[in-house]
Amino acid sequence: MKSESREKLAKVSCATLTTALFKRGLRNVFIQNVQPLSQREENMVGPAFTLRYIPAREDLNPITVFQNPEHPQRAAIEKCPEGHVMVIDSRQDPRAASAGDILVRRLMKRGGAGIVTDGGFRDSPTIAGLDIPAYQQRPSSPTNLTLHQAMDFDIPIGCGGVPVFPGDIVVGDGEGVVVIPADIADEIADEAHEMTAFEDFVTEKVMEGRSIIGLYPPTQKETLADFAEWRKKNGR
Amino acid sequence: MKSESREKLAKVSCATLTTALFKRGLRNVFIQNVQPLSQREENMVGPAFTLRYIPAREDLNPITVFQNPEHPQRAAIEKCPEGHVMVIDSRQDPRAASAGDILVRRLMKRGGAGIVTDGGFRDSPTIAGLDIPAYQQRPSSPTNLTLHQAMDFDIPIGCGGVPVFPGDIVVGDGEGVVVIPADIADEIADEAHEMTAFEDFVTEKVMEGRSIIGLYPPTQKETLADFAEWRKKNGR
Amino acid sequence: MKSESREKLAKVSCATLTTALFKRGLRNVFIQNVQPLSQREENMVGPAFTLRYIPAREDLNPITVFQNPEHPQRAAIEKCPEGHVMVIDSRQDPRAASAGDILVRRLMKRGGAGIVTDGGFRDSPTIAGLDIPAYQQRPSSPTNLTLHQAMDFDIPIGCGGVPVFPGDIVVGDGEGVVVIPADIADEIADEAHEMTAFEDFVTEKVMEGRSIIGLYPPTQKETLADFAEWRKKNGR
Amino acid sequence: MKSESREKLAKVSCATLTTALFKRGLRNVFIQNVQPLSQREENMVGPAFTLRYIPAREDLNPITVFQNPEHPQRAAIEKCPEGHVMVIDSRQDPRAASAGDILVRRLMKRGGAGIVTDGGFRDSPTIAGLDIPAYQQRPSSPTNLTLHQAMDFDIPIGCGGVPVFPGDIVVGDGEGVVVIPADIADEIADEAHEMTAFEDFVTEKVMEGRSIIGLYPPTQKETLADFAEWRKKNGR
Amino acid sequence: MKSESREKLAKVSCATLTTALFKRGLRNVFIQNVQPLSQREENMVGPAFTLRYIPAREDLNPITVFQNPEHPQRAAIEKCPEGHVMVIDSRQDPRAASAGDILVRRLMKRGGAGIVTDGGFRDSPTIAGLDIPAYQQRPSSPTNLTLHQAMDFDIPIGCGGVPVFPGDIVVGDGEGVVVIPADIADEIADEAHEMTAFEDFVTEKVMEGRSIIGLYPPTQKETLADFAEWRKKNGR
Amino acid sequence: MKSESREKLAKVSCATLTTALFKRGLRNVFIQNVQPLSQREENMVGPAFTLRYIPAREDLNPITVFQNPEHPQRAAIEKCPEGHVMVIDSRQDPRAASAGDILVRRLMKRGGAGIVTDGGFRDSPTIAGLDIPAYQQRPSSPTNLTLHQAMDFDIPIGCGGVPVFPGDIVVGDGEGVVVIPADIADEIADEAHEMTAFEDFVTEKVMEGRSIIGLYPPTQKETLADFAEWRKKNGR
Repeated sequence: MKSESREKLAKVSCATLTTALFKRGLRNVFIQNVQPLSQREENMVGPAFTLRYIPAREDLNPITVFQNPEHPQRAAIEKCPEGHVMVIDSRQDPRAASAGDILVRRLMKRGGAGIVTDGGFRDSPTIAGLDIPAYQQRPSSPTNLTLHQAMDFDIPIGCGGVPVFPGDIVVGDGEGVVVIPADIADEIADEAHEMTAFEDFVTEKVMEGRSIIGLYPPTQKETLADFAEWRKKNGR
Repeated sequence: MKSESREKLAKVSCATLTTALFKRGLRNVFIQNVQPLSQREENMVGPAFTLRYIPAREDLNPITVFQNPEHPQRAAIEKCPEGHVMVIDSRQDPRAASAGDILVRRLMKRGGAGIVTDGGFRDSPTIAGLDIPAYQQRPSSPTNLTLHQAMDFDIPIGCGGVPVFPGDIVVGDGEGVVVIPADIADEIADEAHEMTAFEDFVTEKVMEGRSIIGLYPPTQKETLADFAEWRKKNGR
Repeated sequence: MKSESREKLAKVSCATLTTALFKRGLRNVFIQNVQPLSQREENMVGPAFTLRYIPAREDLNPITVFQNPEHPQRAAIEKCPEGHVMVIDSRQDPRAASAGDILVRRLMKRGGAGIVTDGGFRDSPTIAGLDIPAYQQRPSSPTNLTLHQAMDFDIPIGCGGVPVFPGDIVVGDGEGVVVIPADIADEIADEAHEMTAFEDFVTEKVMEGRSIIGLYPPTQKETLADFAEWRKKNGR
Repeated sequence: MKSESREKLAKVSCATLTTALFKRGLRNVFIQNVQPLSQREENMVGPAFTLRYIPAREDLNPITVFQNPEHPQRAAIEKCPEGHVMVIDSRQDPRAASAGDILVRRLMKRGGAGIVTDGGFRDSPTIAGLDIPAYQQRPSSPTNLTLHQAMDFDIPIGCGGVPVFPGDIVVGDGEGVVVIPADIADEIADEAHEMTAFEDFVTEKVMEGRSIIGLYPPTQKETLADFAEWRKKNGR
Repeated sequence: MKSESREKLAKVSCATLTTALFKRGLRNVFIQNVQPLSQREENMVGPAFTLRYIPAREDLNPITVFQNPEHPQRAAIEKCPEGHVMVIDSRQDPRAASAGDILVRRLMKRGGAGIVTDGGFRDSPTIAGLDIPAYQQRPSSPTNLTLHQAMDFDIPIGCGGVPVFPGDIVVGDGEGVVVIPADIADEIADEAHEMTAFEDFVTEKVMEGRSIIGLYPPTQKETLADFAEWRKKNGR
Repeated sequence: MKSESREKLAKVSCATLTTALFKRGLRNVFIQNVQPLSQREENMVGPAFTLRYIPAREDLNPITVFQNPEHPQRAAIEKCPEGHVMVIDSRQDPRAASAGDILVRRLMKRGGAGIVTDGGFRDSPTIAGLDIPAYQQRPSSPTNLTLHQAMDFDIPIGCGGVPVFPGDIVVGDGEGVVVIPADIADEIADEAHEMTAFEDFVTEKVMEGRSIIGLYPPTQKETLADFAEWRKKNGR
């Protein structure tokens, strides 16, 4: 992904991105039932670094497993590359935590761009106050060992019903998270950037009292002319 | 509905309304699993204007359908009468959006009294900031075309498990939305208004330390006497 | 429970408590799918006082049942001992209310330490503003009579999938509620208190840039030494 | 319940019973999501004897609890009166068994009229072959101790979303189970018996090619005349 | 639809049909969570005739509504054209019946080709024995008036999450129901017929011990040659 | 696993196995919401060979992917060792098929001991008639490409909420499937074999009219004496 793309993706909405992806036949790109812990000014943007849980087997998950420095949950946090978003496959099960504030802090300190689980975090009020975007289904205090066994990382997973391949570009805004296939991230960034200019123009016109018919989409000729003028005037 | 009824309904709680309706044998009046995008001072009140989605068929829902000025989603927004609440049957499926901020803005500009979906909105943080009440299950970025095909409007629908007939009076407060059959809206408004006075009296007494037994409901004679006095004193 | 235990429990997180309980083989202690109506400085702490609903039978639940001073919902509110947390088994069904603001106010005035339902409250925005912690699945306006029949209180129940025995110690923080068996409440309070000191130390180290490997859990010798020093310095 | 009522109830359908109850304002009488393990010639009929489970706490539910002769699950089986139907509140959770074939056999030998759980049975293929009607949500091998703690019996419960009071008359046919309040069981039996005669008449007419309009319900005069004749001819 | 198409569709599997539709970009054609009441030799095939329920409002749904000869449920049964399949939108809610045996019998006598609901039937064991295919989610005794209000028919609906337009070709086999857009029914019938021949050939080869690699799909040249020969030999 | 263990496991019930595993602290061993397609005389027994699906991305899953001989679904079928049970992680999503009859036939011909998915099979009526045990949630016609992308095999997975490691011993009877950790399979087989003898004895005694108290579990001394005698007499 080009660095301009990252900048563009930081400023468009997930809604706009899903439409750009829909036009290319990709309908299943929005991680379902996941919401941000806090509202932020800019979007979360970064390549996916994945972590996979399977259901925990009691004998393999005593509290002592964390003493193993290679435990996949801990190892994943230490190996997630800077600028990446950690995406966790918790099988959409929020009955036990996917991670807690200490691990999320460590990810933040290592330069992680964000963290997403289709389960839940423990210490979620604390995480909400950290300077790293986080998305979950709902808060969940119990230690992951209760129900989740960290198995492997950096492999393709499902998260919230969406396929996530390592390196896919993950974008999160105030309502949710979209996953963009790595190879089209630049073109999607460009298109969404353009679409956003048009949507901003439409918003202005709607607030001036114009009907959406003919305006959105721009089926009336004058709409495109007005938009051209608006771009010039607004330098976009 | 009389205009006084609208004023009364703007100031009672959905909880009170459900009790008044329960007394008339109407148990299923609260749109389930729908919450406001923002807290507001006054209730949303208005007659229902309905929109129905069915599951989308891929070949009938390319992005180009919006070029049709008669597309039911767009047409509904332009035809919803002033002061009405648009209520959308999204089959309780929030995996794709029922509408986005541009359409909700247009509805607002046209004088819509509010919008309710049993699915979700896209651009929901933006909608939360608009000057129109909106209720949804959860935010949802994907365009409606992904899963929802707008089919018709101004017909009876289900929304959040509740029957909604065009013209039913829809009231929304800080916790949810109640649907009142049109023909009893005035009497329900009157009754809820009266009940609210009594509940305010009860609240005051409870805060003074009185037990709820005999007070709520007022099975002790003195309760009704106290209430009569309270009304006089408080001009209610 | 010792009074020091109450003080300790007021300052540890539910996450920490679930780990302490997990070490004792108790995996199912976090009331699932329940969230606080408001964020508070201190935890909710108190012994459980339970209330059980069964599904309502229409002929047994007209609005007039509340005239009976022995109605279990009303009686429970008046009998819940000071300092106790009322925990309601609503069969995880939030389609009708478990209680409303007047009853919650009365509980508050009587010194109740909090209220938890695995269903929902009516008047939830009002309850959110009261000076008593409350936890629910989601707001629900309809009167309990619609779906819930209060049957008995002060007996063992399930709440959010968790067994709750009268007298169990209930702790609620900003993300949820944990139930601690009465007979181990003191030792859990002690252990969680100690664990919290260590977690605060770890948090500080992580923010200084230290890796979690060897630190959390403290498998490196220096970690324990550093911690000992930190405790001395911070008086913990 | 009169013994004629039992005979009548043994030969009407649950569908007919729900309609008779609906006419009296009872809408919630069909135990949801429960099906028979085998098809039988006659209905299950008997007064309810209830058993309640709460979620299991691990430390209270080792395998050794069954050594206690007062364990509520075992005690309930030994105390269920002859001719009664055991109805189990398993909180609609079929992830662990409510009972297995040995207990169901014992109930059968003691003269139990049937057994119903809104969870599942273990050894369900064996139970399906026993000479006692049994209804469940789905089969479930794990011992009840895994998730269910038998708490008490002979108290009001919920089962499949329906209120069940001890002594209510429980009727099960090839599609499910209906709960009839004890005090109206006789009149419901009479009415359902009469309705069944009419439905049998209607069925015959429909098979002869008659339209349902005017026939069912009998809004055409001739329908009632034809029915009167049919009753005479068929001795019903 | 050509009559040959009907014959072809009667003998292919729903699985094969979904693949043919998938190749044309139609992914959502299998009515979810619906199963046949009985296994039959031939498929159910016919154009869709639709019926739509909304949630029932208590005051509009007393038992007397059926006295109205225009009641949409009864009217739909009498108006469903011969050879059509009645498809009912019950909002995937099986807690009350969509129809019972008398109505299904009447539909059968009028030449209906089948009936499908995404809810449930009452009298389902009787319906299972009738000479008309029927599909449902699960059995449900309560009268439809309890929860479902028949609203209109012969309009586009959703059933089991699938869009169904009047006239779409509905095919049901031993595992479920597929909906084919009317305008491609003939070509889908042809293609599925051809695919079935190939699948029968593949089945034979697999039973002879051949690997699926190169055979299914036929990426090895010899596979296609073998298939050509097989067709000749088997006259297909 | 010893070959005697396989023989023993073929004749005990999943219920008995879950109890033996429960005694060792393993509570989550029964694959939830999965049922056999047909009833069989002997249990399915074999080591697990796993296959993992993630959600399908449309551009990566055209119908042509099956032309790749390395496609993980096809490759897994060809590589599953003789005597093994294929266990598929379909994320508990039965909306599209995990496999169809041709693949299951091929697995059967290669000596597979069975197949389990927590989703569904297409062509399920055909699979029900094959000479290989198969377990699923519910039938599902749509091709797996619609929703499932086969990703990898022979790795640890979750199936029906249960952890499954390659080589774990999978046992299926008439009600479901149990997963036994490989390293304790022999001792579990022995214990379940012994337990089954005792349960058969108990069954006989219950049918003779004996109470379960003191018999099951055998807390009365005479029970154990009777059992010893019974074993001698019955050669077990």
